[in-house]
Amino acid sequence: MRPTLLIQIFPVNGLPVIKEGDKLSELICRAMENQGSRFEDGDIIVITHVVVSRSEGSTVNLHDVEASAFAKTIAAKTEKDPALVEVILREAQSIIRMRDGALITQTKHGFICANSGVDQSNVPGEGTVALLPEDADASARRIQRNIEKKTGKKLGVIVSDTHGRPLRDGEINVAIGVAGLEPIRDRRGDSDLFGYVLKAKRTAIADEIASAAELAIGQADEAVPVAIVRGYPYIRSNKATAKKMLRPLEQEYFI
Amino acid sequence: MRPTLLIQIFPVNGLPVIKEGDKLSELICRAMENQGSRFEDGDIIVITHVVVSRSEGSTVNLHDVEASAFAKTIAAKTEKDPALVEVILREAQSIIRMRDGALITQTKHGFICANSGVDQSNVPGEGTVALLPEDADASARRIQRNIEKKTGKKLGVIVSDTHGRPLRDGEINVAIGVAGLEPIRDRRGDSDLFGYVLKAKRTAIADEIASAAELAIGQADEAVPVAIVRGYPYIRSNKATAKKMLRPLEQEYFI
Repeated sequence: MRPTLLIQIFPVNGLPVIKEGDKLSELICRAMENQGSRFEDGDIIVITHVVVSRSEGSTVNLHDVEASAFAKTIAAKTEKDPALVEVILREAQSIIRMRDGALITQTKHGFICANSGVDQSNVPGEGTVALLPEDADASARRIQRNIEKKTGKKLGVIVSDTHGRPLRDGEINVAIGVAGLEPIRDRRGDSDLFGYVLKAKRTAIADEIASAAELAIGQADEAVPVAIVRGYPYIRSNKATAKKMLRPLEQEYFI
Repeated sequence: MRPTLLIQIFPVNGLPVIKEGDKLSELICRAMENQGSRFEDGDIIVITHVVVSRSEGSTVNLHDVEASAFAKTIAAKTEKDPALVEVILREAQSIIRMRDGALITQTKHGFICANSGVDQSNVPGEGTVALLPEDADASARRIQRNIEKKTGKKLGVIVSDTHGRPLRDGEINVAIGVAGLEPIRDRRGDSDLFGYVLKAKRTAIADEIASAAELAIGQADEAVPVAIVRGYPYIRSNKATAKKMLRPLEQEYFI
């Protein structure tokens, strides 16, 4: 007898520094080959958003940015670079909270996160920052389609981001773009082992997979922006979107 | 050349239905042996809290509970069983929010979650509910020590719970008890690939590991309450506590 399931997570090593115009799907396939790995049906490719943004040219050089009066006010309050605050505001549809140097916004895509997801780390070029991808679901779909075509395998793709969160300290990785897999496993109505019918049981498996992949993804000096999650039995979907995990603010009941 | 890391996650199958007084560490070792698995140095054992609570007798039969006047009021508002609400209130130090049938509390341990973490699913005995373990860090430590003694291996243990969360839909698994590993990987002050010094980079790896393990843990009909996470290089700690991930309410800056 053996365990009924074996999930494996491994990094895709040896990717070059990603720059605008790079074809991520080709580079990922080549790096997989170079490390002697082959894609298998059901593999989920988890990609940190910053390399997606860089390949798509979603970066801004802060030296080119003129800060508005409001950006300067916020910058003084939060002790940030005014040009950085200007970029954060351009990416935001509203400010959720400012406190102790933190600037929590709702991005134009609908994500609520620190600094509109604008990333200063892992971006080459002094003063250059990475924005969130314009449409991370579309990015995931594009990469999924390209790599499926190249390999003939059925794959899932998750674009991940490192998010702080309310109530709990420390960041975790979540899915901001999804392709090929149902991001939420809905078990409401199922019975448990003892016949109890589950009332609230919708597991955000795309977020859990993003978190699992982060364990294999080095985000600073190791420069490993991609990992493979293998062996997890998910429900395939052609209409997947990470937006499914966004709760509209007016429906917020938790806090 | 091969990937620089391989993380493996697998369930511990074949555990019996856990009841009060059961020695979880012995049962886990036996189940591992029965499925032909052996512990290795560095393995992290992730255990869903409900079996820890059941083994420790942290369960309540709702038929034995008399609801207070306030519990009855809340029960009517949230459309819950008054006895269940009474148990939820006894486990709480405050009510954070009530809306649309949700009852978000801060538990006496300090966790902010739905229904004080009181669990109606996966508990044998009609009308019986499971509370959170009295001290999940201590439970984790006890199990860690016992299994380390039996196997001679250095291990980590995480007691996990399925939590809803603010802002994002779908539940994920988080760590409510930790032993043997540093729950937060602090990289502030490290430099990224391009020399940028990370300012905010504290990854809640214990939560990410709990989420990763959930992918292998069936929480309803499959009855697999334990999974092993293997191959993740963590920092060993003898003073670990899941409380490190609780942000005091007065320091909340996110929402």
